[in-house]
Amino acid sequence: MNTLDALFSDRIQDVPRSFIREILKVTMDKEMISFAGGLPNRRFFPIRQLREAADRVFSVHGSDCLQYSNSEGLIELRRFIADRYASHKGISISPEQILITNGSQQALDLIAKATLNTGDPVIVEEPGYLGAIQALSLYRPTFFPVEVDDRGMIIHDLEKAVTGNPKLMYTVPNFQNPSGITYSRDVRNRIADILAETRCLLIEDDPYGDLRFSGEAEKSFHHLIPDQTILLGSFSKVVVPGFRLGWVAAPEHIVEKLLIAKQASDLHTCNFTQYVMLEYLRNNDIDDHIETIRTVYGNQCRAMIAAIEREFPEGVSCTKPEGGMFLWGRLPGNMNSLELFDRAVERNVAFVPGDPFYTAQSGVATFRLNFSCVDETVINDGIARLAEAIRSFQEDQ
Amino acid sequence: MNTLDALFSDRIQDVPRSFIREILKVTMDKEMISFAGGLPNRRFFPIRQLREAADRVFSVHGSDCLQYSNSEGLIELRRFIADRYASHKGISISPEQILITNGSQQALDLIAKATLNTGDPVIVEEPGYLGAIQALSLYRPTFFPVEVDDRGMIIHDLEKAVTGNPKLMYTVPNFQNPSGITYSRDVRNRIADILAETRCLLIEDDPYGDLRFSGEAEKSFHHLIPDQTILLGSFSKVVVPGFRLGWVAAPEHIVEKLLIAKQASDLHTCNFTQYVMLEYLRNNDIDDHIETIRTVYGNQCRAMIAAIEREFPEGVSCTKPEGGMFLWGRLPGNMNSLELFDRAVERNVAFVPGDPFYTAQSGVATFRLNFSCVDETVINDGIARLAEAIRSFQEDQ
Repeated sequence: MNTLDALFSDRIQDVPRSFIREILKVTMDKEMISFAGGLPNRRFFPIRQLREAADRVFSVHGSDCLQYSNSEGLIELRRFIADRYASHKGISISPEQILITNGSQQALDLIAKATLNTGDPVIVEEPGYLGAIQALSLYRPTFFPVEVDDRGMIIHDLEKAVTGNPKLMYTVPNFQNPSGITYSRDVRNRIADILAETRCLLIEDDPYGDLRFSGEAEKSFHHLIPDQTILLGSFSKVVVPGFRLGWVAAPEHIVEKLLIAKQASDLHTCNFTQYVMLEYLRNNDIDDHIETIRTVYGNQCRAMIAAIEREFPEGVSCTKPEGGMFLWGRLPGNMNSLELFDRAVERNVAFVPGDPFYTAQSGVATFRLNFSCVDETVINDGIARLAEAIRSFQEDQ
Repeated sequence: MNTLDALFSDRIQDVPRSFIREILKVTMDKEMISFAGGLPNRRFFPIRQLREAADRVFSVHGSDCLQYSNSEGLIELRRFIADRYASHKGISISPEQILITNGSQQALDLIAKATLNTGDPVIVEEPGYLGAIQALSLYRPTFFPVEVDDRGMIIHDLEKAVTGNPKLMYTVPNFQNPSGITYSRDVRNRIADILAETRCLLIEDDPYGDLRFSGEAEKSFHHLIPDQTILLGSFSKVVVPGFRLGWVAAPEHIVEKLLIAKQASDLHTCNFTQYVMLEYLRNNDIDDHIETIRTVYGNQCRAMIAAIEREFPEGVSCTKPEGGMFLWGRLPGNMNSLELFDRAVERNVAFVPGDPFYTAQSGVATFRLNFSCVDETVINDGIARLAEAIRSFQEDQ
């Protein structure tokens, strides 16, 4: 250990570096077609409606929206979320079981803070959401990655992983980041049966759940194992991410501990944007708005799949998401997608190689493509460029 | 350990319960005169100006202010903060050394996250700011409390505490919360000399520094031991707290680690309010605004001291703050201020008993009074009621 390292905690020295941040620098170039991002499409930010909402909040709630507030978050906003769980998903949760957080990223931090001791076993998806792996890493758990296929976690592997007595399990069961896959009904039922025999808490992170453009919604784990399920939600993908508004919904004895963690972490989430979001939700039809986003993302996803089938050389496969913002490709014969990345960038097209989404593998053949922020013409151009990069890579193998 | 406890981390079970939250419930009663709060006076929130700023941000920065952003915070806002350090305090800090946080509370969480291993020694003020003790507690350090008198930390006690090889030391050198005292020049110099011999990082938390209503500003520790000083600042006390905007300014190799912690904690601070704050700061004279607050708080502080000298029985002493929002009283003969609290509430006046501000003592004779949110008439009434409560308490001793 050098002398500088001695200044820092062990936990901070363990965090995987965000390769995605590095990639995003590359994509700043205007000539670059980027499938690397993970952003919602800003074309659908309801700017005018939020502006009106903000203006009303200033005039009606005067100084209340600008003063310190409670750590739980605005009760009316929590009630809106609870009502929507009831009306849209048949999930019964009280407003008191909901805590407003700075996006669902903070919910992950608070859950880890409140539950994990060093070395505690945590089951994660492989590939899995990098932001979750980072947030959890800081509490130094032992990760048990369980591979995900087209139908969700591989049950046989999960059965082995639960023998380690896990404390938490992290899942994105709808249109997973990075793979775009959705857990099937059968896989959900079997996971619930397995976890019901343990004391493991299941984190159901569902930022994309409302963005389904084909197929039928599956049940939340909350229907199956409510006492063990912690739901995470967010306004980032369906309204705007810049407000940093998400939430965690959990059994009350857990919320009570999360609240202590929240208070110590930053007292409370921005009060003003909570008021503005509530005002926006009360005066606009969020379902109409979501329908617009859903239609566009669905068209773009279909265009991307069609372009891939048309352009990519044989042997490259991809997932066919029913919603969300990402699809997941696989190069033939375990070609390394990190190596493909440089060739793609030379041709002014970017994607995210699979490596950062794995805790236990490297040099993988998989890669992530984002379709939320690119229209059909750009998709066709970009996929053609990427196909060329793959062919040139294959020729040199 | 019962079965429920096994769900949670050791760290979350160690956090001191916030007695202040309980007290604030009592103060919701309309008949109650409360000196218990710690809030800035909402009368001075620049509502109209912020409303105008928000409106301009929506029209000029369109979707930028609503999209995901970088973890460091808005560069122009960080430049404003750096420029103000240079022009107002002669402190040379680059914008790259500044990280925007959700109030300075989050800065404490990030610093602890990035530096503390379980058991690491941390020096804190006694009495000290409860929010800091809570934030640090979650990383399970060993606290070394050093008593504070009218001139700052007691040097002899600090000399003993540094022999434990502390990693962090937490201070509020200007108008400390809870005591209202300010570190003298001599105490600052001696602390800097002592710490310069160690590897301890000093956290200089300065939320009230701009709210000086008498005396002369003393030098920041950044002038004395820049490589060891981490400055915390906040817009909560001089603009509005509801936006949750604070910052940490530190040497670059430390900021680099704080940034990893920030990214894992919540990706970034609310982007929209950063834009609105910047727009507000560019179009308004913040120094003029601060001057207004300062004058009022100064008048209210003087009124409170005068009322105390007039009304309180002999033997009750109080600090004479040169700024900030709090003063600190002491009952004679080590009377327990927790017991006084109930008698005060019976007479419809509330304050914060000293106990929660100490890590190593209980049943103390001290108490905190807030003067930022009460005008002179209310101060006179409230102090008269409190004097009556003290007399009745003394009679029953």
